This record gives sequence, C-alpha cells and structure tokens, in this order.
Amino acid sequence: MSITFTDPTSLTHDELEEGTAFAPRFDAQGLVTAVTVEAGSGRVLMVAHMNAQALSLTLDTGEVHYWSRSRAKIWKKGESSGEIQKLVEMRTDCDQDVVLLTVEQTGRGAACHTGRKSCFYRLVEVSEGVASLRDSGEPRLFDPKSVYGA
Amino acid sequence: MSITFTDPTSLTHDELEEGTAFAPRFDAQGLVTAVTVEAGSGRVLMVAHMNAQALSLTLDTGEVHYWSRSRAKIWKKGESSGEIQKLVEMRTDCDQDVVLLTVEQTGRGAACHTGRKSCFYRLVEVSEGVASLRDSGEPRLFDPKSVYGA
Repeated sequence: MSITFTDPTSLTHDELEEGTAFAPRFDAQGLVTAVTVEAGSGRVLMVAHMNAQALSLTLDTGEVHYWSRSRAKIWKKGESSGEIQKLVEMRTDCDQDVVLLTVEQTGRGAACHTGRKSCFYRLVEVSEGVASLRDSGEPRLFDPKSVYGA
Repeated sequence: MSITFTDPTSLTHDELEEGTAFAPRFDAQGLVTAVTVEAGSGRVLMVAHMNAQALSLTLDTGEVHYWSRSRAKIWKKGESSGEIQKLVEMRTDCDQDVVLLTVEQTGRGAACHTGRKSCFYRLVEVSEGVASLRDSGEPRLFDPKSVYGA
C-alpha cells in the first residue's frame, strides 16, 4: 500500500512546525535526510537519504528502505548483506526535512558496509592546525569482502 | 587559527574509508551534513550543515558553528538564543560526507529554535494509508517569541 503524505507547500510555517500533517520537505533531488539510530542504545548507526517511495515502503513494510544516490535506485537495507533494519519508530524534525529512524538492527548488527555496527568509527582530532582521524576501535562484525565480494 | 583538511579527491577509496586523513566530502553547495547528539544521553538533538569554515571554527574554538542555508551565513549556534553548543567529540562516517557532533548543550538545554531540547518532537504514524504526526510531549525550555521576537 502506498502511503500518502501532505504537500508542504500547502502548509503555513506554523502548521509545518507544530501541526499534525506529515509533509516531508524533499529537496531538489526529491530526498530527505534519514538519520538512523539503534533501538535501546539510541546510538547513531548511519545517515542516508529517502525519497517518497523509500519513505512509503518503510512505513508500509516496517523494514527500512533508502534511496541509494550512488546506484540511483531504491535500496532495501540488508538486501545484499542480510542486515535488515526493522523500524521501531520514525520522527521528523521541526521543518520536516529530516527523518529520525529508530531501528532494530538485525543480522550481525552491522549497519555499515565496512562490517561495523556504526558508520561513525573514526574520531576527528586536530594537531597543530591539521585535522586527522583516529580509529575508535569499533570491531568488524562481518568481513565485507565475503559479504559483498572483492 | 584555520584548520586544514585533506582534499578527498586526492585519496583512494580505501584511504577515504579506512585512513587517517580527515577529508570532508563537501557537496555541490560546499556542505556536509552535521548530526548533533547530546553528551551523556547520546540523544539526537538536531541536524544541520557545515561548510569548511564552520568545521574549522568549530574545531578551533570548541563551540559549534553551522552554515545557515536559509540565511546563507555562518551561524554560531546560540548566538541569538544563548544555547551555545560545546563540542565534546567529532566523528565522521565511512565516506566522510557526514559529521557526528557530541555536544554539551548549554543555556536552557534547548537545541531547537522552537524551545525544545530536540528538533525531533513529533512521531510519524500511519492510519489507513495516510501518514500524520503526533506530538511526543517534549516540553519547551524557552518561549521562542521572547527569545527571537514575534
């Protein structure tokens, strides 16, 4: 079943920010930003994008679908890796251009294609005016070569 | 002091995803997405954008600066409201087009311009194929009219 959303241009500023109509403000590419957190811990797992079809499929099936910008197609999370995300809750922000997904991360518990739980496995540090990255020690829960091929 | 970043086009795919160079992949507008979470709780407070100057100012001063797309200018968070964000930690994701900021939210503890702690104060619900929003009951920590004017 396709889910119906409200056209944000039909709303006043106050209705957009305080009202009960879900009116995702898709950008020029037809996308909203999706931030995905792990149920229970609330930890940020990943950030991706959704178009209207991905939003509708996610709400209808309870399994998270994104829009892959690199492959220009609907991307059911876990379709290759088995790391399906079960939707627990969806929220939107004040101006409705972001959705916040709380999910149960199934499979081996790895949201990141590198095999780690979270995509945010590196810390930004600054030394003498130069920013660099330090690995936070996040373990790999699967070997990406064996899951996706070389 | 201006902070120096690496040009992502100078890196291999593996260096981008597994290396120690911080090479933010700014989009066509010169922006990366910034997801901001509260220190301690890890709760997602807001999502905004940063250009190179905002990233540099944030890392240099320890106070979070964004790029305001609506005002087309650097936006020191809290400059009007007093709700300054003190940077505790910055991470980036696998392909370096998002930064995850852990902050101490000062002032009254409200990251959202509506006066609430978080911008994500509404839940998406579906009934008979139509998506709508329900207020999660997040209290206002300040009155936006008294802070920003009518």
